[in-house]
Amino acid sequence: MGITVLRLGHRPIRDKRVTTHLFLAARAFGADRGIYSGVKDRGLEETLARVCLEWGGSFRVEYAESWRKVVKEWSGKVVHLTMYGVPFRDVIPAIRDDSAEKLIIVGGEKVPSEAYSLADWNVSVTSQPHSEVSALALFLHEYFEGQELDKKFDGARLRVVPQERGKKVVTITSP
Amino acid sequence: MGITVLRLGHRPIRDKRVTTHLFLAARAFGADRGIYSGVKDRGLEETLARVCLEWGGSFRVEYAESWRKVVKEWSGKVVHLTMYGVPFRDVIPAIRDDSAEKLIIVGGEKVPSEAYSLADWNVSVTSQPHSEVSALALFLHEYFEGQELDKKFDGARLRVVPQERGKKVVTITSP
Repeated sequence: MGITVLRLGHRPIRDKRVTTHLFLAARAFGADRGIYSGVKDRGLEETLARVCLEWGGSFRVEYAESWRKVVKEWSGKVVHLTMYGVPFRDVIPAIRDDSAEKLIIVGGEKVPSEAYSLADWNVSVTSQPHSEVSALALFLHEYFEGQELDKKFDGARLRVVPQERGKKVVTITSP
Repeated sequence: MGITVLRLGHRPIRDKRVTTHLFLAARAFGADRGIYSGVKDRGLEETLARVCLEWGGSFRVEYAESWRKVVKEWSGKVVHLTMYGVPFRDVIPAIRDDSAEKLIIVGGEKVPSEAYSLADWNVSVTSQPHSEVSALALFLHEYFEGQELDKKFDGARLRVVPQERGKKVVTITSP
């Protein structure tokens, strides 16, 4: 059951770093793919492509002009993360038990009300304002029951060797 | 055992939204206080103050000219979140068992190497690049064992009533 994260309404200047963080979190916590709507942003795509090249794995990001089209043509199920939805821990078991591919909609500043009606589940990660980055990370962490933390990223050129002090990064060379 | 989040090297233009998200996540996931160094940013402080006024609780943010001074004068223990540190689930039990007040250092782009040596624990939330926002949220979620999700925010003027579709926000008026 793969996971695709759909970021709505990206604006290159205002959202660049938050959208980058969002997709990096998506990748780190086990999603397979990112799609964003709004304004096309080559810089965003290049940053993500570079990280994936260096740190491995098959996560990729693409642009979609119409988020509605992505959602309406989605053959699996749709989760919309919103602080107004149902608490995530109440619905994650049902979402996990459903074997369909999942599309996770993550809004920006203004989410069209259509997103709420198109989603199979409107899900909140707390009903407090915080960040789409933390909401997505917590959702994936609970969805994968922490197993995403053991994920291997194939083809990495760089790998961190955890240290109590300082940094140790090894460069992996192909045989 | 209270938790204070110390954000290093804030730059108002580049970091505004990420630092805002970071402190909102800190508040939503159970931290008590935020401190930031770098460049003083009234807009950031006002945004946080407004959220706290509307959504309740006692979280507050303040500026510190010298992060080193904050760390060196800290009477409790210091956790530094970094992708180069020890996996969080390996060390959180020890951090939780320690009854001291905790200061959690969260870096920006460039973290001075001193942060690694001043910290009692250098902790990673995955060794992959993602976001300080997701790292902090996951750390707090594991640290509080999910109990932060039941936190009540006293004095809130607004409260979300979770819905399967749409938004419901109630305004709380004082008696």
